[in-house]
Amino acid sequence: MFRLATDDPGFEEAFAALLTMKREDSVDVDDTVAAIIADVRNRGDAALIELTARFDRLDLTPERLAFDRDEIEAEIARVPADEAAALEQAAARIRAYHDRQLPEDAEWTDAAGARLGWRWTAVGAAGLYVPGGLASYPSSVLMNAIPAQVAGVERLVMVVPTPDGRVNPLVLLAARISGVETIYRIGGAQAIAALAYGTETIAPVDKITGPGNAYVAAAKRRVFGRVGIDMIAGPSEILVIADADNDPDWIALDLLSQAEHDESAQSILITTDAGFGDAVARAVEARLQTLERREIAGRAWRDHGAIVTVRDLGEAAALADRIAPEHLELCVADPDALAANIRNAGAIFLGQWTPEAIGDYVGGPNHVLPTARSARFSSGLSVLDFMKRTTLARMTPEALRAVGPAAATLARSESLEAHGLSVQARLDKLNR
Amino acid sequence: MFRLATDDPGFEEAFAALLTMKREDSVDVDDTVAAIIADVRNRGDAALIELTARFDRLDLTPERLAFDRDEIEAEIARVPADEAAALEQAAARIRAYHDRQLPEDAEWTDAAGARLGWRWTAVGAAGLYVPGGLASYPSSVLMNAIPAQVAGVERLVMVVPTPDGRVNPLVLLAARISGVETIYRIGGAQAIAALAYGTETIAPVDKITGPGNAYVAAAKRRVFGRVGIDMIAGPSEILVIADADNDPDWIALDLLSQAEHDESAQSILITTDAGFGDAVARAVEARLQTLERREIAGRAWRDHGAIVTVRDLGEAAALADRIAPEHLELCVADPDALAANIRNAGAIFLGQWTPEAIGDYVGGPNHVLPTARSARFSSGLSVLDFMKRTTLARMTPEALRAVGPAAATLARSESLEAHGLSVQARLDKLNR
Repeated sequence: MFRLATDDPGFEEAFAALLTMKREDSVDVDDTVAAIIADVRNRGDAALIELTARFDRLDLTPERLAFDRDEIEAEIARVPADEAAALEQAAARIRAYHDRQLPEDAEWTDAAGARLGWRWTAVGAAGLYVPGGLASYPSSVLMNAIPAQVAGVERLVMVVPTPDGRVNPLVLLAARISGVETIYRIGGAQAIAALAYGTETIAPVDKITGPGNAYVAAAKRRVFGRVGIDMIAGPSEILVIADADNDPDWIALDLLSQAEHDESAQSILITTDAGFGDAVARAVEARLQTLERREIAGRAWRDHGAIVTVRDLGEAAALADRIAPEHLELCVADPDALAANIRNAGAIFLGQWTPEAIGDYVGGPNHVLPTARSARFSSGLSVLDFMKRTTLARMTPEALRAVGPAAATLARSESLEAHGLSVQARLDKLNR
Repeated sequence: MFRLATDDPGFEEAFAALLTMKREDSVDVDDTVAAIIADVRNRGDAALIELTARFDRLDLTPERLAFDRDEIEAEIARVPADEAAALEQAAARIRAYHDRQLPEDAEWTDAAGARLGWRWTAVGAAGLYVPGGLASYPSSVLMNAIPAQVAGVERLVMVVPTPDGRVNPLVLLAARISGVETIYRIGGAQAIAALAYGTETIAPVDKITGPGNAYVAAAKRRVFGRVGIDMIAGPSEILVIADADNDPDWIALDLLSQAEHDESAQSILITTDAGFGDAVARAVEARLQTLERREIAGRAWRDHGAIVTVRDLGEAAALADRIAPEHLELCVADPDALAANIRNAGAIFLGQWTPEAIGDYVGGPNHVLPTARSARFSSGLSVLDFMKRTTLARMTPEALRAVGPAAATLARSESLEAHGLSVQARLDKLNR
């Protein structure tokens, strides 16, 4: 864990090092992934079945690639009632938030008489990737599928590997709650290839979203262009800005709730009070004695964690913009005022009663957020990611008379004669 | 040029071949580009100057990387008055259209007492790539820079190679009109590297947009993640749906206005009247006798052009959705009704008085549009491409009491103990 203070002479250098710290070993799996994609494109279902037998130790047939309704119901029946209720509450809140993101169409007639506008439509089909095993999170299903459902995607399918046939029943329930039509028990690069190119059994989709390991990420990069993809997420991050008027244990738990995700996660506290920083550091160590995932969280905290002491909240805001954190928690007296001074963050959690974990499950906003400083230029997942905008323009003869000559002039200046002639031929008719 | 008709027995096969036709030879320049980027990262200005001397035959110093104000004014003074006026008119119309795209912030309090919302902010700095030489189009400057300006990007810079020191004065005027602050006379992968990583003289940006050759495209792919980029555009496309009640020459010119862009461009006519299709084919041939760019346009039309006869406009709409064209022109009696049946298109031009070239210059909508069937899942350039959304959530103690238990339950079900504890510790305090 790094301790920095803006009044240290070496601060700028140490902070720059923190910003550019390499946290992930990028494994080069690109050749393997290219071969898997080619195999699925060439041999379709047969390749999928063979790869699933090899990687997931599961024997399938084309008919059994998808779960059937009875299997899903049988699994879902095993979900404890309190978990089912929590999932329903989370889904309702996420849906209510995302409903407000539906964009509006526009149409107007301008002074020249031209009718202009745009129209939003949903992508035709979307595919959601869900990891298997330990990282098979039902909350991720909700966060990916509900925006697609709200957007009005007609066909929403999911892929999830089921190593040795094991599946998380809560993941299946989350899929049912959020309108997933079909669930295929496949994973890895082969599942991404099937969604992008289709097989005899699986129809191709237009957009693929959802988290995955290095193979899945590489496959998504490769099929991008053929289909749309969401961002490629890096390790999780949290920045907490806190004054001394907080419970150090709460802040410690907030920092650890990112650190426990994986060893590459990064948790940073910026505080106006060095003594409070010490207290949080002690609270983190105390919690690390007992936390189930203490190996992972401890490693992440030691290797990438930081506590930064600043002179005032103005400095804190400036540093936050440079960090551009995925999650930003503002535990200060006036969090709204501080938030107004910060431009770059994926999601902001205001005040001490809003631990980041609320946003992971039941807050309403999406938990798929930009990492690795990309909040400087990108946003979390939203309904817009499952829609596209078509622009509309309709000229009348009068409108063409008003704007056509400028178009013809510019076309000639760009040496694009046919462009100019296509306008001029119509103007000539009007002037005849 | 391909002739197809939906009542041909071999139609489906022929249409599928048209859809998947490979139009571009992808040149693999990735290794060269990787070396150039590494060089600029390592040596900064010195690398930029050396590479510019080699590729553009132009000797620069760090001080002369950017045009100075006097040089720009001297160049702009050479622009003919009619061209300057046309550019101003185009800019005003593009700005008026994009002004309407500014998204709204939102904030509300829900039934649980949670305050939720989101906030849009502009990216801090954007860099616009403009090709040199023949494809140095002032209209592209407007279409890329004005959305950034409308978004409120604080620092907007441009790079444009000036081979042998030559620059298009109209490009410099377009930059001035659309709020570009600094123009660097550099191009290629080295310019993209400078924008992404910065040099001693050039400050790094957060987002890079604009068209370029294979080297520029490869460089943009490589720096993606470090900065945001726009789409990688493929060759231009137009689909015209026309009934017999049109002037075949107008439609021929509309088809040729995409074909003249480059030999990989694709122009398709779908018509309900085979005889009209014949007339358009003859009109295209006639225009190809005299067109300045007849070599390029003729090659594109012969190799990739198509005329498809359909039984009715319902068939036309279904084929349009499969083509998902960049530009879609609807020259039919009721273009609005037809547009309502089509989901996938970058931009729609309604009625015979709206040639696609209007949209390239003065219509108002952006001319940077999704190609290669990506209108199935993506949109043209807009103000949103230069903004990002931060989600906001603020719980009160009461709101936490209402939603916290579900979060804690789901965290436990996902084996993320610290997530659950961060919520539970606060609930415990409330319940004490």
